[in-house]
Amino acid sequence: MKTLYVADIRENQLVDGLFLVATKNQGVSRGGNSYLTLKLIDRSGEIEGRVWERADDLGRGFERNDFVRVRGQATLYQGKIQIRVQDVARVDGSKIVAADFLPQGVFDPDAMLAEVQTILRGIKNPHLLALAEACFADEALMQLLKCAPGAKTIHHPYLSGLLEHSLSLLKLILKVVDNYRGIDVDLLLIGGFLHDIGKVYEFSFDRAIDYTDAGQLLGHLIMEVELVTRKIDMIPEFPAELALLVKHLLVSHHGAYEFGSPKLPQTLEAVILHSLDDLDGKIQAIQSLPEREPGSKWTAFHRAYGRSFYRGSGEKTETEK
Amino acid sequence: MKTLYVADIRENQLVDGLFLVATKNQGVSRGGNSYLTLKLIDRSGEIEGRVWERADDLGRGFERNDFVRVRGQATLYQGKIQIRVQDVARVDGSKIVAADFLPQGVFDPDAMLAEVQTILRGIKNPHLLALAEACFADEALMQLLKCAPGAKTIHHPYLSGLLEHSLSLLKLILKVVDNYRGIDVDLLLIGGFLHDIGKVYEFSFDRAIDYTDAGQLLGHLIMEVELVTRKIDMIPEFPAELALLVKHLLVSHHGAYEFGSPKLPQTLEAVILHSLDDLDGKIQAIQSLPEREPGSKWTAFHRAYGRSFYRGSGEKTETEK
Amino acid sequence: MKTLYVADIRENQLVDGLFLVATKNQGVSRGGNSYLTLKLIDRSGEIEGRVWERADDLGRGFERNDFVRVRGQATLYQGKIQIRVQDVARVDGSKIVAADFLPQGVFDPDAMLAEVQTILRGIKNPHLLALAEACFADEALMQLLKCAPGAKTIHHPYLSGLLEHSLSLLKLILKVVDNYRGIDVDLLLIGGFLHDIGKVYEFSFDRAIDYTDAGQLLGHLIMEVELVTRKIDMIPEFPAELALLVKHLLVSHHGAYEFGSPKLPQTLEAVILHSLDDLDGKIQAIQSLPEREPGSKWTAFHRAYGRSFYRGSGEKTETEK
Amino acid sequence: MKTLYVADIRENQLVDGLFLVATKNQGVSRGGNSYLTLKLIDRSGEIEGRVWERADDLGRGFERNDFVRVRGQATLYQGKIQIRVQDVARVDGSKIVAADFLPQGVFDPDAMLAEVQTILRGIKNPHLLALAEACFADEALMQLLKCAPGAKTIHHPYLSGLLEHSLSLLKLILKVVDNYRGIDVDLLLIGGFLHDIGKVYEFSFDRAIDYTDAGQLLGHLIMEVELVTRKIDMIPEFPAELALLVKHLLVSHHGAYEFGSPKLPQTLEAVILHSLDDLDGKIQAIQSLPEREPGSKWTAFHRAYGRSFYRGSGEKTETEK
Amino acid sequence: MKTLYVADIRENQLVDGLFLVATKNQGVSRGGNSYLTLKLIDRSGEIEGRVWERADDLGRGFERNDFVRVRGQATLYQGKIQIRVQDVARVDGSKIVAADFLPQGVFDPDAMLAEVQTILRGIKNPHLLALAEACFADEALMQLLKCAPGAKTIHHPYLSGLLEHSLSLLKLILKVVDNYRGIDVDLLLIGGFLHDIGKVYEFSFDRAIDYTDAGQLLGHLIMEVELVTRKIDMIPEFPAELALLVKHLLVSHHGAYEFGSPKLPQTLEAVILHSLDDLDGKIQAIQSLPEREPGSKWTAFHRAYGRSFYRGSGEKTETEK
Amino acid sequence: MKTLYVADIRENQLVDGLFLVATKNQGVSRGGNSYLTLKLIDRSGEIEGRVWERADDLGRGFERNDFVRVRGQATLYQGKIQIRVQDVARVDGSKIVAADFLPQGVFDPDAMLAEVQTILRGIKNPHLLALAEACFADEALMQLLKCAPGAKTIHHPYLSGLLEHSLSLLKLILKVVDNYRGIDVDLLLIGGFLHDIGKVYEFSFDRAIDYTDAGQLLGHLIMEVELVTRKIDMIPEFPAELALLVKHLLVSHHGAYEFGSPKLPQTLEAVILHSLDDLDGKIQAIQSLPEREPGSKWTAFHRAYGRSFYRGSGEKTETEK
Repeated sequence: MKTLYVADIRENQLVDGLFLVATKNQGVSRGGNSYLTLKLIDRSGEIEGRVWERADDLGRGFERNDFVRVRGQATLYQGKIQIRVQDVARVDGSKIVAADFLPQGVFDPDAMLAEVQTILRGIKNPHLLALAEACFADEALMQLLKCAPGAKTIHHPYLSGLLEHSLSLLKLILKVVDNYRGIDVDLLLIGGFLHDIGKVYEFSFDRAIDYTDAGQLLGHLIMEVELVTRKIDMIPEFPAELALLVKHLLVSHHGAYEFGSPKLPQTLEAVILHSLDDLDGKIQAIQSLPEREPGSKWTAFHRAYGRSFYRGSGEKTETEK
Repeated sequence: MKTLYVADIRENQLVDGLFLVATKNQGVSRGGNSYLTLKLIDRSGEIEGRVWERADDLGRGFERNDFVRVRGQATLYQGKIQIRVQDVARVDGSKIVAADFLPQGVFDPDAMLAEVQTILRGIKNPHLLALAEACFADEALMQLLKCAPGAKTIHHPYLSGLLEHSLSLLKLILKVVDNYRGIDVDLLLIGGFLHDIGKVYEFSFDRAIDYTDAGQLLGHLIMEVELVTRKIDMIPEFPAELALLVKHLLVSHHGAYEFGSPKLPQTLEAVILHSLDDLDGKIQAIQSLPEREPGSKWTAFHRAYGRSFYRGSGEKTETEK
Repeated sequence: MKTLYVADIRENQLVDGLFLVATKNQGVSRGGNSYLTLKLIDRSGEIEGRVWERADDLGRGFERNDFVRVRGQATLYQGKIQIRVQDVARVDGSKIVAADFLPQGVFDPDAMLAEVQTILRGIKNPHLLALAEACFADEALMQLLKCAPGAKTIHHPYLSGLLEHSLSLLKLILKVVDNYRGIDVDLLLIGGFLHDIGKVYEFSFDRAIDYTDAGQLLGHLIMEVELVTRKIDMIPEFPAELALLVKHLLVSHHGAYEFGSPKLPQTLEAVILHSLDDLDGKIQAIQSLPEREPGSKWTAFHRAYGRSFYRGSGEKTETEK
Repeated sequence: MKTLYVADIRENQLVDGLFLVATKNQGVSRGGNSYLTLKLIDRSGEIEGRVWERADDLGRGFERNDFVRVRGQATLYQGKIQIRVQDVARVDGSKIVAADFLPQGVFDPDAMLAEVQTILRGIKNPHLLALAEACFADEALMQLLKCAPGAKTIHHPYLSGLLEHSLSLLKLILKVVDNYRGIDVDLLLIGGFLHDIGKVYEFSFDRAIDYTDAGQLLGHLIMEVELVTRKIDMIPEFPAELALLVKHLLVSHHGAYEFGSPKLPQTLEAVILHSLDDLDGKIQAIQSLPEREPGSKWTAFHRAYGRSFYRGSGEKTETEK
Repeated sequence: MKTLYVADIRENQLVDGLFLVATKNQGVSRGGNSYLTLKLIDRSGEIEGRVWERADDLGRGFERNDFVRVRGQATLYQGKIQIRVQDVARVDGSKIVAADFLPQGVFDPDAMLAEVQTILRGIKNPHLLALAEACFADEALMQLLKCAPGAKTIHHPYLSGLLEHSLSLLKLILKVVDNYRGIDVDLLLIGGFLHDIGKVYEFSFDRAIDYTDAGQLLGHLIMEVELVTRKIDMIPEFPAELALLVKHLLVSHHGAYEFGSPKLPQTLEAVILHSLDDLDGKIQAIQSLPEREPGSKWTAFHRAYGRSFYRGSGEKTETEK
Repeated sequence: MKTLYVADIRENQLVDGLFLVATKNQGVSRGGNSYLTLKLIDRSGEIEGRVWERADDLGRGFERNDFVRVRGQATLYQGKIQIRVQDVARVDGSKIVAADFLPQGVFDPDAMLAEVQTILRGIKNPHLLALAEACFADEALMQLLKCAPGAKTIHHPYLSGLLEHSLSLLKLILKVVDNYRGIDVDLLLIGGFLHDIGKVYEFSFDRAIDYTDAGQLLGHLIMEVELVTRKIDMIPEFPAELALLVKHLLVSHHGAYEFGSPKLPQTLEAVILHSLDDLDGKIQAIQSLPEREPGSKWTAFHRAYGRSFYRGSGEKTETEK
């Protein structure tokens, strides 16, 4: 069991803990001896490890992407903490809890799922309700949903991020529809629940968050159409037009061809779903950005949005004293 | 005073009413006689008028864009009602109520303005509150705001449409911020109130909704920066950073360079304002679209959005019997 | 049964035939009498019909999109043939053969399907062969495939056009792969067969070629993924990676996001399929373009390609005499 | 006072001079000792400094962006001159002349401003002349104008670069209008003078040329509209249409939406101003590019223009001998 | 010889003149009689002609694009002058002066050519001078140059427009280079002279200004490279690098790939040539635009530039009285 | 003569061989001694060389881009082989066979050229045949054609790559035209042969494959138009329209403005040539991509195509056992 996290390691501390080997490189010192440079990570961050002794020997015992037990001492080098490794050995992956090694959202997945279910069980349309229940009854799906991240990097890029985003979106939908007449709220809610559910297959998230081959070649949008097709096929008398409307929400929710939607939103609900999905993701992403440098009024540059964001001096809305 | 509207004219009815001359063309019949073809409009629609007798004579008495009193008889021609005009004469514009001739929103402008004021007076930041009050105190501005349309064609294209859109947006902002932490709601509210206020100068709306020269050469975004600059210049001790944040909301609210924003949204509030402004306009626009043809499941094509919208058969969410 | 085609009607001929009413407009003559202007179509072209007598009476008996029996006489008006209609009456649609009213390709659908099957039965991979056979065994699908058009307007826009395009593409694939090593021909062939098969649901083609609601809201690409998912689900031990590769061919075959592919081609076979599909469509489309005007060296303007094509004087490659 | 410039430092020279600390990094040598790596800059260039002794001690006395007095010796390391620093200490910024530390244009700012004023005082339109004089009378503005750079990197990126560009543009305008009839030269001159004047607020240029917060959030275009609005508001009887034309020149002078102009040039003068502004900047930028490598016929790559420029062999237009 | 121009025809006037038949359509009147509707053009404008009698007979004697002698009477119909044609007959094209039928610039071609030659003979580089002289010595080329239009519609779209544009550009170059150092003026002048010379082959301009097949398939840019290649091949010892620089000016002068330049401007001179060429064309085009409607402050919409231009009230720079 | 290749050098081996100096950098060791770091290349790859002794002395004897004879010993450093150089001296370039130092395609150039000639001599059109023969008769051209690469990096980036691509394209053309009627195969074949022939002047390929100045300023497309213009000028009675069609193939073969074609393909043959040229290049490029990492199912990222390609597990089309 993991008890020591990277973020807690201090100068000169004796280290004995479990880490994931993110990179492993062999070098040869001026003196002609082999050494190993390791990048060791867990959910709290990353740290460099150096193996100066028995490097060839120890190096044969593990590879990149292995979990390892590392013993050594923390030292300061060029202003950074690193571990001088005395011993390192592979650990059986089955003894590992993934959540120790990947960033995890702050909310409890079971509680979030319960809240999602409560909202969706408020759906009045019996067919859409049946579709929601068919998903809830699929335990493998629910297990994945509780763990899956919202993205690799853009927004909610941590375990349970998908569920957090979905729940936030459902609550946002309920508020927004309250401001207008004539919106099919049941349809919007099922769309909010299912619009990203293919991400449970798009990403692998056992060691690091990465795209699966299917995620790369098909994408979550296609895979959730497949999922929904199979679920609806098993619900008796599901109206054909309603199935069409649900699937249209999925295929159009990126809002534009260049973002991978093969169809533009062509119903009022599809327009709203795209808009609120986009907004919820952006709010989370912008609020999570680190500062450009300590004390800066600006965030770090966000690649996908092509800009930094201004946070201000913190006194912007203060009353004059 | 206007008592007869285009939409109420029936076949064979005797016509005596006030209209705006939208187009006026002279023709010559096979028999060599002059006649006039008029397009007459009021806020309820448009109708063709034909002057077969004394055309030269009557034609000298008015021009395109004049208000006229028309007398004649409604007849059916090629499946459409037209007026065979017996008499037509220019009417003094000062006797005209513009709202009779331009489409008018369904909500009461005074009530909407009151609601806007109530919301903005909930602002806690004293500087932003002072800015709101400075605008409310500008009576000429408030008069224009009560009348101005939201656009020429895209969304809310009718008298008081700007106010209707602003109010809807303010209410939407209040709901949405409730779903998140860390958003400066005062800033968002002042942005929601001011983001389109330059449209009172961008459009002329005394006879038809059209762009003014200033609207075409500068645009509402620039003109509202000028307005806000002048207002803030007169508020003592308005913090410079806060002024910057307010103006940034205005200049970035179109969200992209190609839509005429010289700067991209670079604060969380600017991102949210752009998103909700866009959404509110789209919902109104899509819900107002006519059907493609009577009974169609599809709306007419929307030019700016480049598509039709699917409304469905009306039974899409019905419970099975 | 239809015996008379629009293209065969000559000046002064007595007309008695079955047509589809494409448009129906009522007019009123100077003399105050109603008349009807009809656009009558069949697979050979369109002709105008005018009903000058008993227009109200006859007009009540049919609507746009009805099949009608028309009797009258062909006359020349402003350089064009039109029919002065004496009698027109609705005909029961069940007595109509659709192929009489829609343009039909020149090749025999049964012979083309047989050729397609022969090619696909040459596939060596047993799973892909099983997938092909599963499609052949679906008789409803095969019936639709024999009739469906290749497009509404762009290329192969006529009955059986989809099958003609698919067969041409399969033959092209066989030739091209012969020029290279290392291409998975079985995969390419199944992709060539299935890449557009969703068009059987994307278009309606009983009266005119038009998009279905599902075609508009989902598109053929999504619908053929659904079809293939269902077929593969029923084939035992179909390898997961192979299923992924087949579906990737479908979702990427438009080659670019802006053409509605949610994923870019990411396998060699996907790149080739997109390229040859595009080429085969373009060759058919360009060769089918009419001349700009009689005798012109240039074709009419092709909207989707944004240009006319130069056909030359016809003597371009002639040997000098 | 600064007497020693980076560009003048030679191998083995004893160094004693004032520099700006551009970066400051701490390292630890193999032997476990701290050392500092500094990037020291002045207007003539940059040089590396290494503090090998008393690094911790000296390092506490200054930070990045401080001005420091450095004593040490110049040495050659890996083909480059660097300073082995014996002593380094912060210097009070008030004793510093900014122009010593930032690149400075080659022309005298006072002489350039005088020339600009002479040209603008040739304006015949009394209102535009009054606007020019109102700007000249604003001493704070004139001080900034004499110092401000033309840009951060693209063109004229040095102190007084804005004035140099403005003067060059005014002279170019005078020449070009001479080639045509019907151009309003007074309007063009005022546009040439004011089109970039907001850059005095867009950039900070006391230590390095960088964007201000206002420059990033509003941009010079918006800020110069504010400036001109305030100036015009104070000129009695300034014609409204003329104000509109002046401001239109400002808001449209980038020529395209994607370059941050919220309106396209819609007057002849706006078209000309954009074209000549762009040309003058490009000529300066291209002529200032360094060679790709010593002796190359090509310049270094220009990022914003996306290309290198060919300068040729220097004999391109030589007469044959 | 042509003595009567369209623009001079008045109501009720007897007409006898030469015109070009731009369109010729046959109609049948209600009474069953054939009539002809002609569009007749000359350089001053276009007028409709109607042949009510002997239409079949007269119509056989000429076709579209023929020159014809027309006799008849001018009458007013629906507010427009048209000709009731009594007689119309084809005229031998050899008796026609093209300049009577196509719009012609206002400047004398011979005088313009002389001025162009004077400017170019100021070139000091002997190779470039030799290239200019080789062009002047090509009489067929000079004849075409004196007549060719500057474009079909965009700018200088009239006979001798190409020469007018080239001369204006040369004079502009001389002024602009005076504002800068280090520009190769000889190179710019030869570029200004040759950059559009391929238009003499790109357009046909004997009856109407239209693209030739070569103009459509290759374009003036390619054809002038061919021309210059042939000329340079015949000049002894023309330096290879100089030839490259001249041709680079030609291939890059549209300034961007999307405007048909296969290479971007990569020399200072190429950048300047593109910029001034573009500016000169735009000034001519904008100044030539008609008003949107009589008295409007706005011009008609310019398709290629995607906007109207504001001309103002005419009092914009007036002194207050 | 070169006998030792980089790819064959093993740890501890004594080295004596000819290499091209790709980079040459001087350093100073901690001990204050100069040393040289060299990148040495030949067609098989690159290797680092370090000169630790007599570095100043030896360094004066050669420069970057020189061919050198290197003597020393191969050693392993940080997991990579490098050469500890004892002696290095410049070698006269005239003794060098370029093919030893640049990557070379796997096919024999003479055999490929013979095959190209056989195909083209099957052309029936006598003019096009004469054009082909005129090219074959140009020995300097044929020598260049046998050596030239297909590109710098995109596809066929090795000696004789241009010929390999041209031959593959010709064979592809012959196969594809067989699938369609009405294509002018002679025209397509001459286009396939000439479409890239300007690359013999666009690239230098004596030491490394790089763009020439002419390649950069004009490009192969323009230079092959010049070449073909000169060849056709010398063939008597070559039909003008045919010349136009050949040149159109050249100028349009990149298929789009943004890829440097000044004209879009406007003949059926031009459309086909662009499509097949693009396909042949892509197949070669994709098949040549290395793996992302050893054993990966994905290739390295391809910059120009903006993606990696999926190669799969290698069992994708296997029969189940």
